[in-house]
Amino acid sequence: MARAPDNSVASVGEFALIDRLRRLVPTRGRGVTVGLGDDAAVLSFAGPVLATCDIQVEGVHFTWDLCTAEDVGWRAVAVNLSDIAAMGGTPRFILISMALQPTTSVARVEEMYRGIAEIARAYEVVIAGGNLSSTPGPLVVDVTALGDAGRALTRAGARPGDRVWVTGTVGKGAAGRFLAQHPAVRVPGREALVAAYCRPTPRVDAGRTLGGVSDVSAMIDTSDGTAGDLLHLAEASGVGVRLEMDRLPAPPGLAEAAREAGEDPEAWTLAGGEDYELLFTAGAAFDTQAPGLAARLAVPLTRIGEILSATEGCWISERGARRRPLAVQGWDHFPRGRG
Amino acid sequence: MARAPDNSVASVGEFALIDRLRRLVPTRGRGVTVGLGDDAAVLSFAGPVLATCDIQVEGVHFTWDLCTAEDVGWRAVAVNLSDIAAMGGTPRFILISMALQPTTSVARVEEMYRGIAEIARAYEVVIAGGNLSSTPGPLVVDVTALGDAGRALTRAGARPGDRVWVTGTVGKGAAGRFLAQHPAVRVPGREALVAAYCRPTPRVDAGRTLGGVSDVSAMIDTSDGTAGDLLHLAEASGVGVRLEMDRLPAPPGLAEAAREAGEDPEAWTLAGGEDYELLFTAGAAFDTQAPGLAARLAVPLTRIGEILSATEGCWISERGARRRPLAVQGWDHFPRGRG
Repeated sequence: MARAPDNSVASVGEFALIDRLRRLVPTRGRGVTVGLGDDAAVLSFAGPVLATCDIQVEGVHFTWDLCTAEDVGWRAVAVNLSDIAAMGGTPRFILISMALQPTTSVARVEEMYRGIAEIARAYEVVIAGGNLSSTPGPLVVDVTALGDAGRALTRAGARPGDRVWVTGTVGKGAAGRFLAQHPAVRVPGREALVAAYCRPTPRVDAGRTLGGVSDVSAMIDTSDGTAGDLLHLAEASGVGVRLEMDRLPAPPGLAEAAREAGEDPEAWTLAGGEDYELLFTAGAAFDTQAPGLAARLAVPLTRIGEILSATEGCWISERGARRRPLAVQGWDHFPRGRG
Repeated sequence: MARAPDNSVASVGEFALIDRLRRLVPTRGRGVTVGLGDDAAVLSFAGPVLATCDIQVEGVHFTWDLCTAEDVGWRAVAVNLSDIAAMGGTPRFILISMALQPTTSVARVEEMYRGIAEIARAYEVVIAGGNLSSTPGPLVVDVTALGDAGRALTRAGARPGDRVWVTGTVGKGAAGRFLAQHPAVRVPGREALVAAYCRPTPRVDAGRTLGGVSDVSAMIDTSDGTAGDLLHLAEASGVGVRLEMDRLPAPPGLAEAAREAGEDPEAWTLAGGEDYELLFTAGAAFDTQAPGLAARLAVPLTRIGEILSATEGCWISERGARRRPLAVQGWDHFPRGRG
């Protein structure tokens, strides 16, 4: 029998590892009647429940050289909290499944769990369930997030005449990934861009607040890219849309980073993905509420387009250019033709 | 760009694949306000919520040569429904995360989903969420199950004087795995044993019914092996236990299969794991209820031991043999010393 490397998960064993990990994260809190350690958790909610899951694979969603293991843990949770936020809900509990190679160092797994603990504490989320497996392949972490639904704002409520809004800035996921891959490239705002990629901020407060605003009609998060997610929203709502390219709020340094990368900055703002901002639609009355709300949330709210009828179609308009079709340019895990 | 193999997941693309898969499974039903396709599902429960997750990895939990892809899908759900059953609850919804190689055939993934659909329909469970990723490694499927808690029977309620009971038979997971690996080995009950391994029956009705019996004091499912799970229950309850080896209900053919395998049948009944039976404790008054309940559920209920005080410890007794310590012999994903 091969000897396990010192401080590998195989050197401590599954149950001892679970004991070490659960001590790192918040496992008790409001609504947890039975927590980690039984066959299932027993959880109480305020009403209807939001549920979502997102699986992240080493080498596909993250690599150890770009971000810290703490970032990887933070991110695996953040992308799920973003989905809860996009429904206007309040995240409450998460369950974590992880597949690890026996040779993985306990230190790395603990570091991931420290990142998980940090974001859980930041958003008052309790780790209510978990499960570890060995794997001969890449590390896999799958997180399920559960939350209080509140109004449960879907993608399907947009109506012609509504305006399209977005929180924060777009394109920073792609710019941050490029900068993390190229440590020597210096651009203004470099650190913020890398942080936006490695440790994205789910718009939990903004989502919950917008969910409570009656003029807000539909919402989605920008995980697949602004264009792709706007098309998802338009399709679900049965409407058309006009996206005003000039209004897209790019973050500082994006244009410079794109130039260094030899990329069109538009490819990042429109289709970069992994921004985890909220893209939402609202009636005209929201225009006057937006500045006050943005100030209260300390999050920019930018109007970037308007909803058309389905027969009018989906377009991008730009100053001094002909309008062009808004096409799917988001991330596809299995793009056709890729083998 | 390499051309994707015909009928691989890469040849159809992520979103088209998702469309094909969701048509195969039940996605609507009681309690689903918003189902698959939005950022999160919106679900209604009768009261407190049970939540559990279990990740299965190709080459670790299953291989394609032992069971059909339909079985793999069924099994990934069954192990989670078993955890809900072990709390005395009612499974309601599942979320499925899957990581697939781009070269995986669509036919295989669809076959898995047909197995998922079959068990979902059998137990009236709705697929409320899902998520696909590519992976360069083994196929991974992680299922989260959510259910109505009912009484929420934990592992922690056993008291000295309670008796220990088990549903069905034990050791069939291990025997079935061996027989699936050795198609030429003929033993009585072979088909039932292989089916028990490839397509385990979660004890959903029994769990819910036992959860409603006031004399039942604690429950756990036997996924890790009878001995290991009984020790988990004893530890959580802060009690000792005496397991009567002669009473363990082995299935037909187990002894013959063990002989063919050159294994001690006890190793399978005590520690084989993957049986997904319910191990529970109940006060003495349950003795007289058990036969009627077993008949009503059409599931054998066998008394296999009794709960002792913590100071009395955990033991195995056997006719004509000295009592010996009950020790953990269950499955460990990262056994110490394995590299």
